[in-house]
Amino acid sequence: MSQAVNHQLLLASRPQGEVTPDNFRMVEAPVPSADDLADGQVLVRHHYLSLDPYMRGRMNDSKSYAEPQPLDTVMIGGTVGEVVASKHPKFAVGDKVVGMGGWQEYSVVDATERGLLNKVDTTHIPLSAYLGSVGMPGVTAWYGLIKIIQPKAGETVVVSAASGAVGSVVGQLAKARGCRVVGVAGGAEKCRYVVDELGFDACVDYKANPDPKSFYKALKEATPNGIDGYFENVGGMVLDAVLARMNAFGRIAVCGMIAGYNGEPTPMQNPALILVNRLKVEGFIVSEHPEVWPEAMTELGGMVATGKMKFRESVAQGLSAAPEAFMGLLKGRNFGKQLVKLI
Amino acid sequence: MSQAVNHQLLLASRPQGEVTPDNFRMVEAPVPSADDLADGQVLVRHHYLSLDPYMRGRMNDSKSYAEPQPLDTVMIGGTVGEVVASKHPKFAVGDKVVGMGGWQEYSVVDATERGLLNKVDTTHIPLSAYLGSVGMPGVTAWYGLIKIIQPKAGETVVVSAASGAVGSVVGQLAKARGCRVVGVAGGAEKCRYVVDELGFDACVDYKANPDPKSFYKALKEATPNGIDGYFENVGGMVLDAVLARMNAFGRIAVCGMIAGYNGEPTPMQNPALILVNRLKVEGFIVSEHPEVWPEAMTELGGMVATGKMKFRESVAQGLSAAPEAFMGLLKGRNFGKQLVKLI
Repeated sequence: MSQAVNHQLLLASRPQGEVTPDNFRMVEAPVPSADDLADGQVLVRHHYLSLDPYMRGRMNDSKSYAEPQPLDTVMIGGTVGEVVASKHPKFAVGDKVVGMGGWQEYSVVDATERGLLNKVDTTHIPLSAYLGSVGMPGVTAWYGLIKIIQPKAGETVVVSAASGAVGSVVGQLAKARGCRVVGVAGGAEKCRYVVDELGFDACVDYKANPDPKSFYKALKEATPNGIDGYFENVGGMVLDAVLARMNAFGRIAVCGMIAGYNGEPTPMQNPALILVNRLKVEGFIVSEHPEVWPEAMTELGGMVATGKMKFRESVAQGLSAAPEAFMGLLKGRNFGKQLVKLI
Repeated sequence: MSQAVNHQLLLASRPQGEVTPDNFRMVEAPVPSADDLADGQVLVRHHYLSLDPYMRGRMNDSKSYAEPQPLDTVMIGGTVGEVVASKHPKFAVGDKVVGMGGWQEYSVVDATERGLLNKVDTTHIPLSAYLGSVGMPGVTAWYGLIKIIQPKAGETVVVSAASGAVGSVVGQLAKARGCRVVGVAGGAEKCRYVVDELGFDACVDYKANPDPKSFYKALKEATPNGIDGYFENVGGMVLDAVLARMNAFGRIAVCGMIAGYNGEPTPMQNPALILVNRLKVEGFIVSEHPEVWPEAMTELGGMVATGKMKFRESVAQGLSAAPEAFMGLLKGRNFGKQLVKLI
């Protein structure tokens, strides 16, 4: 093997408020050789690491849907890569694979445990897309939209973080179902992309409308018939404005509340609207719904392979760039799916 | 007819904040004679008028799930009474009936319109119960608990306004399904009633725990295994505390948010808990689900008739007492179902 060192980023300390670079620590470990592998194990060289908002929650010590990440361990994260050594009959050197390899350049995976490592077909779909539109973010979008919002043609669907890995898929799936689709994004460039490239009907720029009143006014103009479905990625002011525009029997899929990830509570100003408009508000985590994966992947993979699902990536180069890229993601500085290229 | 005058209470003005007596105006109208009735009409003498929190919403001019009540019209309200004259073949003088007669002593009902007037059987069920446990409040409790919360034996169900017309039914239905049932009520007397008479497992007194910290502590002690289902009647501090005690995949049926009825917004402090605990929060209005009425009434009527469903009534005497009784209801001064006796 040309590279004998596996660089790893560990969780060094828990953030007090915002994430800072010293919450991470870079270490070096030896890359195992083929001889070191036990039966059933596979050695993967990572091509891309996925950065996702859920990682922020894992860095806390508080109760959440997942156990906190232990200190001094490799940061959790989805990866795509290539098999460089294998003692499992179903994986051969050169196979492209997706898994949860973490913030490091190589990982050894026990491929006998079902679902830990999956081979992917890169004939028509780029490898990195398996961390985005055809990966966990794509299935997240699919589940929240199809299973919770259940959009009908003609309805208005709003999605926040609209240019991101999840939001961009939500909007394109809803457009394919005949909905009026309105995105919420930060900045003119992202809003233009959402409308011109992704085909949304409108996009509301929260940076151009930083106070609740002007944001509500802009949202109202973009949703003349009210809102029937909302895919929530951010919380805070955006959620309050959307609630005030919801139609009777509207559905809200709560996928993320990035506004509150640093510990500051972000109240919902008028929860009585849930009653007034007979809304259904449901939180979900895609990993708890593995049963939808095949159906979702069939639709998403088909759309990406045929160019009907567009996506955009922000790629940071090298593992050492991961902390800065992650901090940028939490502040919305990325544009599209945030990746770290490791080769 | 012995009484030629029909006293009526009209909505005289819309409340600015709290309801005040001068929001109502008493007027007199003649009681129609049998000869005045058109074909299909029935003249009902009201025995009881029901007072319910939803009426507060109707007094506002703002958008809600129902049209605002027009000024200078008889206040809306459920009534039970007796047919005193009839030009409809299915209703005879002496029949006991339930309908929406409003805040007045008599009403003329077009009985050809389906559902406006229903005959009731008072052999085993007192007439007034058709405004409570075996009426709209009872079916409200049934729908929110059975259709939204969907409680399983062994789960913990919490209900606010636990001694009230809706809350008392929620708790007894949940107990019958093998749940641990915890009420929230105001004052030691109501809490004792909820536990000793209605058979709840525990009750948290929000008046004895008026600040969020002490309320949360008391709720935590009463729900050692967390909360799986919550039937929401009040909002505010109670909702915040319950959210922080919800288990994964908990369900919240939002039936009322009485804390916000006077227009002041009551924020939900930490909506991110909906995501963290993958909750389903759903608002509903029972009148939009007429399909459940037969099934709900069969269970509720059976339980009341056999003494398995207990209830308590606060009865104000005479129509002129209605405004004061209604203001008391909104402040939680009633104890059980609030009625006005009109004969």
